[in-house]
Amino acid sequence: MLSFERSAALFARAARVIPGGIYGHTAPAATMPGRSPYYAQRAAGCRYWDVDGNEFIDFLCGYGVHLLGAQHPEVEEASARQARDGNAFNHPTALMVELAERLVGLVDFADWAVFAKNGADVTSWCLQVAREHTGRKKVLKIAGAYHGSHAWCAPGHGGWIDEDRVHIHGFPWNDLNAFHDLVRQHRGQIAAVITTAFHHPAFGASELPAPGFFAELEATCRREGIVLVLDDIRSGFRLDLGGSHRTYGFTPDLACYCKALGNGHPISAAVGRAELKRAAGHVFLTGSYWNSAVPMAAALKVLEIAQRDDAVGRIAQAGARFRAGFEEAAAKHGRALRFSGPDALPFVTFADDPDFFLAQRFCQAACARGVFLHPHHNWFLGAAHGEADIDQAVAAIDAALGALSD
Amino acid sequence: MLSFERSAALFARAARVIPGGIYGHTAPAATMPGRSPYYAQRAAGCRYWDVDGNEFIDFLCGYGVHLLGAQHPEVEEASARQARDGNAFNHPTALMVELAERLVGLVDFADWAVFAKNGADVTSWCLQVAREHTGRKKVLKIAGAYHGSHAWCAPGHGGWIDEDRVHIHGFPWNDLNAFHDLVRQHRGQIAAVITTAFHHPAFGASELPAPGFFAELEATCRREGIVLVLDDIRSGFRLDLGGSHRTYGFTPDLACYCKALGNGHPISAAVGRAELKRAAGHVFLTGSYWNSAVPMAAALKVLEIAQRDDAVGRIAQAGARFRAGFEEAAAKHGRALRFSGPDALPFVTFADDPDFFLAQRFCQAACARGVFLHPHHNWFLGAAHGEADIDQAVAAIDAALGALSD
Repeated sequence: MLSFERSAALFARAARVIPGGIYGHTAPAATMPGRSPYYAQRAAGCRYWDVDGNEFIDFLCGYGVHLLGAQHPEVEEASARQARDGNAFNHPTALMVELAERLVGLVDFADWAVFAKNGADVTSWCLQVAREHTGRKKVLKIAGAYHGSHAWCAPGHGGWIDEDRVHIHGFPWNDLNAFHDLVRQHRGQIAAVITTAFHHPAFGASELPAPGFFAELEATCRREGIVLVLDDIRSGFRLDLGGSHRTYGFTPDLACYCKALGNGHPISAAVGRAELKRAAGHVFLTGSYWNSAVPMAAALKVLEIAQRDDAVGRIAQAGARFRAGFEEAAAKHGRALRFSGPDALPFVTFADDPDFFLAQRFCQAACARGVFLHPHHNWFLGAAHGEADIDQAVAAIDAALGALSD
Repeated sequence: MLSFERSAALFARAARVIPGGIYGHTAPAATMPGRSPYYAQRAAGCRYWDVDGNEFIDFLCGYGVHLLGAQHPEVEEASARQARDGNAFNHPTALMVELAERLVGLVDFADWAVFAKNGADVTSWCLQVAREHTGRKKVLKIAGAYHGSHAWCAPGHGGWIDEDRVHIHGFPWNDLNAFHDLVRQHRGQIAAVITTAFHHPAFGASELPAPGFFAELEATCRREGIVLVLDDIRSGFRLDLGGSHRTYGFTPDLACYCKALGNGHPISAAVGRAELKRAAGHVFLTGSYWNSAVPMAAALKVLEIAQRDDAVGRIAQAGARFRAGFEEAAAKHGRALRFSGPDALPFVTFADDPDFFLAQRFCQAACARGVFLHPHHNWFLGAAHGEADIDQAVAAIDAALGALSD
């Protein structure tokens, strides 16, 4: 058994001075209470070490941020070099212009780009841009989709009021009938439709777009004058270096990126079509650190390396190998489970496991064998997951599946 | 004359791919179009260099972030050391616990702390905590006060809808009658009062709290069950290392910090009383980079050095010397102007200058002489402003005031 003694001791201290001890998406209650690390020490490539010295092959990639693997030497070199000159100034640096030019060159429909820190900074701002552009209030979103911790969409927790959501209407993923019903019901009042590139709800299998789903969303938005917003925070640059809309064959008006862009350095971005540039210029957008140079130096290097090294192709290959090995191990142990989502961001759900208790037991067993998985949040692969890492992880997962029956 | 040729060339490129070229609080339109740098190159201590190689003594401090001066060697050493181990992980690091303990030890009323990236992350979240705690919707704020770029309070720009502000009610700074009117009008419905420690509106002189103002706010909040939120984003740790409420003799229930905390590294924080811990645990709070280790390593070092070196005292001294020299130069040139705000975050407005044109001309003249000031946003001093720097700046300001009459 691994020891999580230091994690537990730190958490006991934290609980006295931090509400919940650890909050948000990294809260232990959200993973495997008592059976997983609570605090990290360091990371390198596809591995990390917790404060008890336990080593894990990481299939969360820092919840998606490590596209190229943690501590990628060239990214760290570029960011450290910029850090010697400075990070936050009274003005942006030339890096902001270069990065905007790079994104406009990379994302086919993008005519402009802006930068912030968090995913929610840009998803919320894009809805404001859509409202400014259209003069309308309503927003359609996929029911159960996460677009950040802001009041208009934070998952079922406290602190939001009815007014935060009175103009937010949800429809089920892939349900075009429900979508068209909402469009009819609120015709002329809908500013935006916001969607992820595939559906990756918490506590549920991931779902890819059905054939024609995005084509119909896009055609309807064009016809009705609705702004189509792609929340590509999780999947952006992991499925296609030109943005995940290319994977699924549609074209949004605005798109949001974050996770993979900085390989661990804090940056998010929104890009958009020329038609929306005027409205974008009229919606206030700022934060103390949104012009910061270090994450922009990192992002430029990330995009350069991802292209040079075909990160997307390598991640897809690693993901396919992982899935094949995982499914083979599951078959061997007679476990009915479902691999869902694209190979680069896979997720596994077990049959007859409505409360995710089996998933939690399985993830605990994998964790005890040095593989970090999440029982109810999609996983992430990165370009640092080599064949040997995948094979080692699959062997541990094989053993973990075996131990489930003990 | 200084040349801003490279800034102008970069801005021309930027305008093609970024709405407005530069957006938000660092937009050139907000300072001195054509007569000031648009892009920074590097910074050190109280000085920075723009992309044209011009050197400035910085009285904005990166809009407040450089408490100890840019690129403070010990802060940079601590952050670079953490950067070698990693920044964003699947979990927080021990630094988050240490930093929460440090803030709870430092801020007298604080029983707990949480961390985010931007000021608005925590000001908006504190209002949610107040709503969760009280079960009420309404928020009172000072008219014209800035609490971040979120829709409920972004300054007069597009993209927000009536519903974002239907429960936000403003009253003039220091106007207790207007405050009491609102409290009477909305009795039992007010979740929070949010205020800065002194009033620092854009396009206006700063205003200190009138005697009794905060005492009355606090007493009323206690009596009415309203949560008192201090937005200490700009002034926190610059007026008192225990928080700016100590400077003005009151005690909030929640307080927000950002700017000075990381000395250029991206971090914000909220702290609160024990009574609010339960509600705080129920309001979702998360972001991809909010647990990141590097800014927490920086913040711990910033607080250590600020205490050891009496940063607050040094900043106050530098600010007093700056003010004395400035006022003497103004008298010499027969310029009627008003120094407002605390010496650590001063601001200067000219008499008979309702459109701030004279302020802009003056700031341009100072900029041409190597001193960066802002015509309509409060200034910031830091612990790196030495006597020689202040004297050099005052001499340049003297010349700039003289040139105004030419």
